[in-house]
Amino acid sequence: MAELTITSAANPRLKQLISLRRRRTREELGLTLLEGYDELVLALEAGVRLRTLYFCPELMLDADVQQQVVDEERDNGVEVVRLARQAFEKVAYREGADGFLAVAPSVRHGLDQLDLPADPLVLVAEGVEKPGNLGAMLRTADAAGVDAVIAADPVTDWGNPNVVRGSKGTVFSVPVASASTDEALNYLHRNGIHLLAATPDTELLHTDADLTGPVAIAVGTEKYGLSDEVLERADARIRIPMVGRANSLNVSTSAAIVLYEAVRQRARR
Amino acid sequence: MAELTITSAANPRLKQLISLRRRRTREELGLTLLEGYDELVLALEAGVRLRTLYFCPELMLDADVQQQVVDEERDNGVEVVRLARQAFEKVAYREGADGFLAVAPSVRHGLDQLDLPADPLVLVAEGVEKPGNLGAMLRTADAAGVDAVIAADPVTDWGNPNVVRGSKGTVFSVPVASASTDEALNYLHRNGIHLLAATPDTELLHTDADLTGPVAIAVGTEKYGLSDEVLERADARIRIPMVGRANSLNVSTSAAIVLYEAVRQRARR
Repeated sequence: MAELTITSAANPRLKQLISLRRRRTREELGLTLLEGYDELVLALEAGVRLRTLYFCPELMLDADVQQQVVDEERDNGVEVVRLARQAFEKVAYREGADGFLAVAPSVRHGLDQLDLPADPLVLVAEGVEKPGNLGAMLRTADAAGVDAVIAADPVTDWGNPNVVRGSKGTVFSVPVASASTDEALNYLHRNGIHLLAATPDTELLHTDADLTGPVAIAVGTEKYGLSDEVLERADARIRIPMVGRANSLNVSTSAAIVLYEAVRQRARR
Repeated sequence: MAELTITSAANPRLKQLISLRRRRTREELGLTLLEGYDELVLALEAGVRLRTLYFCPELMLDADVQQQVVDEERDNGVEVVRLARQAFEKVAYREGADGFLAVAPSVRHGLDQLDLPADPLVLVAEGVEKPGNLGAMLRTADAAGVDAVIAADPVTDWGNPNVVRGSKGTVFSVPVASASTDEALNYLHRNGIHLLAATPDTELLHTDADLTGPVAIAVGTEKYGLSDEVLERADARIRIPMVGRANSLNVSTSAAIVLYEAVRQRARR
């Protein structure tokens, strides 16, 4: 297959690529952007089938090794496009571009597409706006072996390039879903999953709660916390002990602390 | 005391303020910048004595309440300078400026200035470059009641405005110190504090280690981890169990997971 090369920064394909930074375009096309060699490798390991792989040899940090990924994808029938440096830098969206940018199908994100094991450990993130926080929670969920991350009433979509980036590509390996808070709560209830809501307004410490069995841990926004709907329908409210002056831990830090307490308890069953 | 007002964005005082964004200037003058109402209040609660308070009423989110802080500081003898919007926006260094910017003495940061209780819990962050990560660790340290955070061979200084910001002002309430790795290790040894090094290359899980008593937990950079010096001189190496695909948890997330395991164990003694 002849390789397409783009040298002009005015090429219309670049404009199409840039249009994928908009959520609406991503959702209409069911596509997402993926930038960076490490993230790309993680996505490929997770079984992602690329639509198009854009690469720029001049920007690669280790062209000898990294070019192999380009060749393998080409051999797999993926469209591969070489960009001149000027063209690549126009479409790169992050600092320190390393010569890899790909278009991939958006991750599946319906609740009905989740395939949970017995006694799942689930993270519910309600209303989280910052892509960096969602990405950080995915990295933690990946490390902790969380079975699904559900964004309830999400402000940010899973295809947001900054989520993909912040997650270091784990958005492609951790099962994720998006739903309204009501749908998410119904789903958990229907599947017999106990919902534990993290909030400062309770006496029960997260280390005194039973986090074994089928459990979902819900965290809310840093500013407003969880909605009344989640707090009222939760099976229990739990809090992380805090002695300091600042109002609250970062939301992704809170999620990590509770998830790893669950890991500890579940390893001891 | 008559109030100084600056309306011109060309005023030389603004240039001086901007010069404090440079580490060298901060260190020479022993001063740091503090931006944002919430951070300011935390710093004041922690006993910080401001050098100068710059404020801009047009940018305040709740001028009725927030103006009181300005008045109190003026009554305390602090120099207070009112900036026109255009002038304030020139010196603000973060998005969403809220009309508060202050110059304060840099936090003390010699190891000999730390005043540890019996059985202290200490966090050692080696070589961390990203101000956001240092700031996030301070928030966690504050919440967990950590007795000191030591930056070993730090790439970033505690006075970096992005550390101040990321810490939500807790850099003024949590005792912090900077030192070379060698000095930090000597300090811990001299004070009978057990050093536990977080690294993937060990079998001992952090939940199986004894984190009670006088303990320091060391975390390294995301890219390279801890130095050989720390790994070799540590009393034990501990690891956080990880089942996923991504290489590692974020450094501030790792610190939070281990610190909160220490909190759990110490509450049960």
